[in-house]
Amino acid sequence: MTSEPNDGSGNRPHRSVINSAAYSNGVRVADIPIADLGDAWKHSDRFLWVGLHEPTEKVLLHIQQAFGLHDLAVEDAHNAHQRPKLEVYDDCVFVIIRTVKLSDRENQRIEFGETHVFLGPRYVVTVRHGSPHSHVGVRARCESTPNLLAKGEGFVLHAVMDFIVDQYFPVIDALEAELDELEVQIFSGKLMRSVTARIYHLRRDLLAIKQAISPLIEVSSRLARSNSQLISDDARPYFQDVHDHVVRIADLIDSLQQLSQTALESNLALISVGQNDDTKRLAAWAAMLAVPTMIAGLYGMNFKYMPETQWVWGYPVSLGIMLVSCLILYQWFRKLGWL
Amino acid sequence: MTSEPNDGSGNRPHRSVINSAAYSNGVRVADIPIADLGDAWKHSDRFLWVGLHEPTEKVLLHIQQAFGLHDLAVEDAHNAHQRPKLEVYDDCVFVIIRTVKLSDRENQRIEFGETHVFLGPRYVVTVRHGSPHSHVGVRARCESTPNLLAKGEGFVLHAVMDFIVDQYFPVIDALEAELDELEVQIFSGKLMRSVTARIYHLRRDLLAIKQAISPLIEVSSRLARSNSQLISDDARPYFQDVHDHVVRIADLIDSLQQLSQTALESNLALISVGQNDDTKRLAAWAAMLAVPTMIAGLYGMNFKYMPETQWVWGYPVSLGIMLVSCLILYQWFRKLGWL
Amino acid sequence: MTSEPNDGSGNRPHRSVINSAAYSNGVRVADIPIADLGDAWKHSDRFLWVGLHEPTEKVLLHIQQAFGLHDLAVEDAHNAHQRPKLEVYDDCVFVIIRTVKLSDRENQRIEFGETHVFLGPRYVVTVRHGSPHSHVGVRARCESTPNLLAKGEGFVLHAVMDFIVDQYFPVIDALEAELDELEVQIFSGKLMRSVTARIYHLRRDLLAIKQAISPLIEVSSRLARSNSQLISDDARPYFQDVHDHVVRIADLIDSLQQLSQTALESNLALISVGQNDDTKRLAAWAAMLAVPTMIAGLYGMNFKYMPETQWVWGYPVSLGIMLVSCLILYQWFRKLGWL
Amino acid sequence: MTSEPNDGSGNRPHRSVINSAAYSNGVRVADIPIADLGDAWKHSDRFLWVGLHEPTEKVLLHIQQAFGLHDLAVEDAHNAHQRPKLEVYDDCVFVIIRTVKLSDRENQRIEFGETHVFLGPRYVVTVRHGSPHSHVGVRARCESTPNLLAKGEGFVLHAVMDFIVDQYFPVIDALEAELDELEVQIFSGKLMRSVTARIYHLRRDLLAIKQAISPLIEVSSRLARSNSQLISDDARPYFQDVHDHVVRIADLIDSLQQLSQTALESNLALISVGQNDDTKRLAAWAAMLAVPTMIAGLYGMNFKYMPETQWVWGYPVSLGIMLVSCLILYQWFRKLGWL
Amino acid sequence: MTSEPNDGSGNRPHRSVINSAAYSNGVRVADIPIADLGDAWKHSDRFLWVGLHEPTEKVLLHIQQAFGLHDLAVEDAHNAHQRPKLEVYDDCVFVIIRTVKLSDRENQRIEFGETHVFLGPRYVVTVRHGSPHSHVGVRARCESTPNLLAKGEGFVLHAVMDFIVDQYFPVIDALEAELDELEVQIFSGKLMRSVTARIYHLRRDLLAIKQAISPLIEVSSRLARSNSQLISDDARPYFQDVHDHVVRIADLIDSLQQLSQTALESNLALISVGQNDDTKRLAAWAAMLAVPTMIAGLYGMNFKYMPETQWVWGYPVSLGIMLVSCLILYQWFRKLGWL
Repeated sequence: MTSEPNDGSGNRPHRSVINSAAYSNGVRVADIPIADLGDAWKHSDRFLWVGLHEPTEKVLLHIQQAFGLHDLAVEDAHNAHQRPKLEVYDDCVFVIIRTVKLSDRENQRIEFGETHVFLGPRYVVTVRHGSPHSHVGVRARCESTPNLLAKGEGFVLHAVMDFIVDQYFPVIDALEAELDELEVQIFSGKLMRSVTARIYHLRRDLLAIKQAISPLIEVSSRLARSNSQLISDDARPYFQDVHDHVVRIADLIDSLQQLSQTALESNLALISVGQNDDTKRLAAWAAMLAVPTMIAGLYGMNFKYMPETQWVWGYPVSLGIMLVSCLILYQWFRKLGWL
Repeated sequence: MTSEPNDGSGNRPHRSVINSAAYSNGVRVADIPIADLGDAWKHSDRFLWVGLHEPTEKVLLHIQQAFGLHDLAVEDAHNAHQRPKLEVYDDCVFVIIRTVKLSDRENQRIEFGETHVFLGPRYVVTVRHGSPHSHVGVRARCESTPNLLAKGEGFVLHAVMDFIVDQYFPVIDALEAELDELEVQIFSGKLMRSVTARIYHLRRDLLAIKQAISPLIEVSSRLARSNSQLISDDARPYFQDVHDHVVRIADLIDSLQQLSQTALESNLALISVGQNDDTKRLAAWAAMLAVPTMIAGLYGMNFKYMPETQWVWGYPVSLGIMLVSCLILYQWFRKLGWL
Repeated sequence: MTSEPNDGSGNRPHRSVINSAAYSNGVRVADIPIADLGDAWKHSDRFLWVGLHEPTEKVLLHIQQAFGLHDLAVEDAHNAHQRPKLEVYDDCVFVIIRTVKLSDRENQRIEFGETHVFLGPRYVVTVRHGSPHSHVGVRARCESTPNLLAKGEGFVLHAVMDFIVDQYFPVIDALEAELDELEVQIFSGKLMRSVTARIYHLRRDLLAIKQAISPLIEVSSRLARSNSQLISDDARPYFQDVHDHVVRIADLIDSLQQLSQTALESNLALISVGQNDDTKRLAAWAAMLAVPTMIAGLYGMNFKYMPETQWVWGYPVSLGIMLVSCLILYQWFRKLGWL
Repeated sequence: MTSEPNDGSGNRPHRSVINSAAYSNGVRVADIPIADLGDAWKHSDRFLWVGLHEPTEKVLLHIQQAFGLHDLAVEDAHNAHQRPKLEVYDDCVFVIIRTVKLSDRENQRIEFGETHVFLGPRYVVTVRHGSPHSHVGVRARCESTPNLLAKGEGFVLHAVMDFIVDQYFPVIDALEAELDELEVQIFSGKLMRSVTARIYHLRRDLLAIKQAISPLIEVSSRLARSNSQLISDDARPYFQDVHDHVVRIADLIDSLQQLSQTALESNLALISVGQNDDTKRLAAWAAMLAVPTMIAGLYGMNFKYMPETQWVWGYPVSLGIMLVSCLILYQWFRKLGWL
Repeated sequence: MTSEPNDGSGNRPHRSVINSAAYSNGVRVADIPIADLGDAWKHSDRFLWVGLHEPTEKVLLHIQQAFGLHDLAVEDAHNAHQRPKLEVYDDCVFVIIRTVKLSDRENQRIEFGETHVFLGPRYVVTVRHGSPHSHVGVRARCESTPNLLAKGEGFVLHAVMDFIVDQYFPVIDALEAELDELEVQIFSGKLMRSVTARIYHLRRDLLAIKQAISPLIEVSSRLARSNSQLISDDARPYFQDVHDHVVRIADLIDSLQQLSQTALESNLALISVGQNDDTKRLAAWAAMLAVPTMIAGLYGMNFKYMPETQWVWGYPVSLGIMLVSCLILYQWFRKLGWL
């Protein structure tokens, strides 16, 4: 195993090469330094599996020379922020997949990354960009089933894709949970300013995931129908399985997008209803202030002959009338549902 | 008939195997224990039909070994929550369909389930997940028409699909009835907070059904155009018939989705109209309080020379003026339609 | 002509068989009882045209046996509420078309019906469901042009389809007129509660028609490109003509759907504008009450030294000030367009 | 040149036949009466170009007999209000195009018309319906370039289509200008009732043009890829050019449709903002009336011991307090942006 | 290098011909005057690369005659405002691409231009319209890698397209930054009139870019799959790379369009919420004025027997009651979140 020097920009030493091993009959037989990959590939029939993480240009150059990769694919592999795609060159398949992960960070739900895979006769190179899960687990799982690994390169590509696609499900579950929570808030009757912002951010996340997953529909479908010698006939159902998962994820996102749109519109309707309710409540209280004010105004008039004003009980009776009229109004508004 | 031991998680004993029988010329001739299915299939030309319900892994393993099913299909059959699909392997057709049922439960209109069907030469295995209707009725109906059943595996698949697809219609009828009821409420002139929530939940149900039914359009269409030996030529019009039903269901859902969207928007418009009506009503009553208040204010002024205040009839006349002006206002607002 | 006994459910005797006649060289030569259709078809080269209206099962059985129709098609023909479609069997074409008619009934603009057509060598059977127009006119028109009728079965199918499709135009004209009327109301400046409900019902009608007509696009297109011997080469331009009409109807509906959506949104905007106008008008009147109330309040203060209150003209002058300030406000609100 | 008698319905004599001429090597050699077209076409190799305007049935019959046109095409040519289309018969191409023109009339921005073209070996017949521009200019332009005209029928069709399609651009420019003007009004801060109606009518116009132009995309594309002998190989790039223009027009309309939708929604948002602004302004003025009213109310109380009421300066000081509190409120609302 | 005389319309002398050079083995060997291009092309095997900027008709005529270009393409090249397209003539490929640039001008974010490319055997002609970046950089970069330039015409076309497409990214970044800024404003809780206008203009810009980039998806895809001899096999992956970029740009725009739509709707919802908040705040203050006014009204009544009015402490106590009730209301509204 070769450890490349750190790029120097970070504090933690960065390891470009995570793994570089040769397999024979599905069993790991040797670690191959990056510089020796070319010889190892040409002069033996062992299967090579190299795992890189944000590799330096130097490492990529070694890889390119070892397996004779196309300039453009190597250039892509060096730059993240590519669109998921499948590129078929003469003797090499190049796949880009976007990876997702629920984020621990504040203000961000999802972290995106990218995995690029070069697949050729007797070699697989995976290049990982961004923080999401390492593929160490994939390698360990593959190594624990040597008979599958012995079936060749196609199965490694499948294992990596399957692993990455499965990571979408918890993310979508989290977004579904978020929408369920928003539903409760929207229909709770309380008007919350934050709901609109949360729906907006949910929709932004859904759009981002959709852009990551939709190109995979075609990629996985092409792999399942591929004529390439690199994908053996019995590997195709497995890619079809990946394809089914991708389509299901796309379906779920589609559904969430439509539901969140309806939620946004329902929210708007309920804001209006809530506004109306508030207006009515205000009006009811205003009426209960206005009626005594009017009655008081009456007895504030300066007519010479106002019999009530001369009565001993005039004042308390007028107060009583005010109180009673307020109570009647209160009951009435109660019945109308305004209070 | 074999009865598998309960999985142990529930209280009620759970039967994995509902039915496992051999048919000859469309007539049930024997019940075959799960463990003997492989022999029964290989060493006789009788047709085998196995019905499972949320089977244990052990049962599925028996089935897989008996008929040599593909790993991936068996894995799918064990896990529910798959997308409806049709998978064609060399000598086996694997179909997943989602089933629906009107729910008795509070707060939930629709229950979803899944039925997976393995169809091969001289055998059909149906695996049911979730609570909706058992297929016992399908088997009974098939057994009552031996001549159809004698036509082979394809007809059993058709019978199961036809049965499941027909269960969508009452569900859609229920949603249509719900929308009709909502229409009445929306246009009744009363502002109901619950209407928005009900439209939202209607739309959520429609989305869920749409996701269950739309993949069936392609599944049924592929079965109707299939070249597989498992689907005989004279079975194809029957799958075309299923296809027509599926397309009609999809059409109905589409229509309900668009109508419910319009209902949501109409609701929003009518909430605004209702708000306006309330504002006007409030304003009318406010005016009828404000006018006497103003008149009372006039006669509350402390001018030395206010002839009216000295009149004996000043007070009752002023009260009369207030009353009359209120009545005039009332009539006027009435005419304007504000009250 | 055979008259089938009434089904018994209605008050009016119901005639299943409207017409059942044989044609030779485009000329009607005999009426054939339903029971004799099979013989008449097999043992002569005359062309048979049968017209049914909501036939009993017994009548359909006669027809099926006479021409050897497929079970599924006959089952469809017995049940209305099918989706328009074209089914091609070995030697028979089965077409379902939905018919429309402007309704006389209260609360319903459009009545839908269905016409099913069986077309085979030397026979056409039309089965009509629902109330819309009978096809008697079609038969009469066909019989008046024997040379066209002599061209064969395809031309009869065309005549029926052309007749049914042409019935869509007056319905769409009525919906267009409705939208024009709604436009006038929306932009008239008056706020009408009923407008929203009418747009909603217009959109519901449009959706229903769209569902009836859109499957016909493919049906008519397939007939125009058909290789079936039943549709002769020179009949194809005629089906292309039907296809053009269907596409035009679909276009018109599409356009009405989009316009009515815009109308719904414009309505919403104008409701808000109207609300604002009302608020301003109310505020203006409130101000004209509040100003005199405030002035009256001033002179209601009990200060010992308020010179105005001692003046002889104090009271009328204060009333004058109130009046003048109200007039000034009135003019001002007028200028602002609030009144 | 033949002049057909007027149909009699209008006041101005109506000329069905605008032009009917024979061309040899691209040069006009003779005017041919309608009645002689058949002979002229059969017995010479000259190219015939006939221009009709809302022809009578008699004229169309002459034309049909002369060139052996299909019944359905002639029927179409007699009735306007067809959908743009391209119909290919054995030896004749029939094209329908909708024409547009900016209208001079009040309350209508756009006038639509139709041009039908019959194109066969050595003849072109154009039939114009509705008022928009005559094709006299097209003929003049073609006659001025005999070498192009000599290339045959296809070039005449191209010239007509190019001319008609180019007429769409000024109409779209006018609609763009209308939207620009609406933008200014929407964002000007003034609330105008008319804006909503104008957006609605703009959208109606856009829909009408879209329906006129979109079928042309396929028509022009089919002409550019046509295998018909009537369209020579070197004419195809010219139809491709027409196709490019049509697609560009469709693009522009699409863009205007989306922008006008956004404008409608922005308008709605700004109506709400405007409403809020008005409410705040009203509230500010209401507060400035309510504060003095309350203070006046205080000093209207009849307590025996209210020292202020006994002061000589009590009254002016209270007025001063009212004035100052109003000024403070005014400044404060100013700062808040409510006034 | 030939310098054409200025067109005369501008103040600055305008150079139609930016560059006109011959290359041999990827190295610039000579500058060729426009008038000599035809000879240079026919009588040598050197590769010619001509760069024009808003060329005069005379210059274009020279070019057309030199390389035998099609009339229509030359006509297009003279007029800007074309839709991006790829036209394949017998021995020439004609490409139109729209260019974008962030604008320095006030009130305009983006400037559009057009680049037309003629590509034939051993020649490339680029015609630039509008202000955006010159291609001098492209030429310089190509000249610095003679080995790539030596590969032929296809690589020059790729270099130009790659350069133009890369210019879209900073523009989209700017629009993304604008949307991020708008998000902050929308959810800041402050109601800003300008936000709606800014979303509108953002959406207008997005539509304009979308119209510029979407036709490129097909153009670049066709170039990547092209069979033309002008595009060599090893050039295709490079066009596929351009295609990937174009699709990614289209994806980003799509995403921004959907997000900005959601932003518009969220803005609308928050305007309503804000309106409601303002209404509540107003109502709270109104209540705090109305309560003392009512109390003052009470003690303004002229009853003979009102014990409080006779008390020495009556006045200050009543003031205290008013103050306390206001404070209680203030606290209460505070708790309700209305203030």
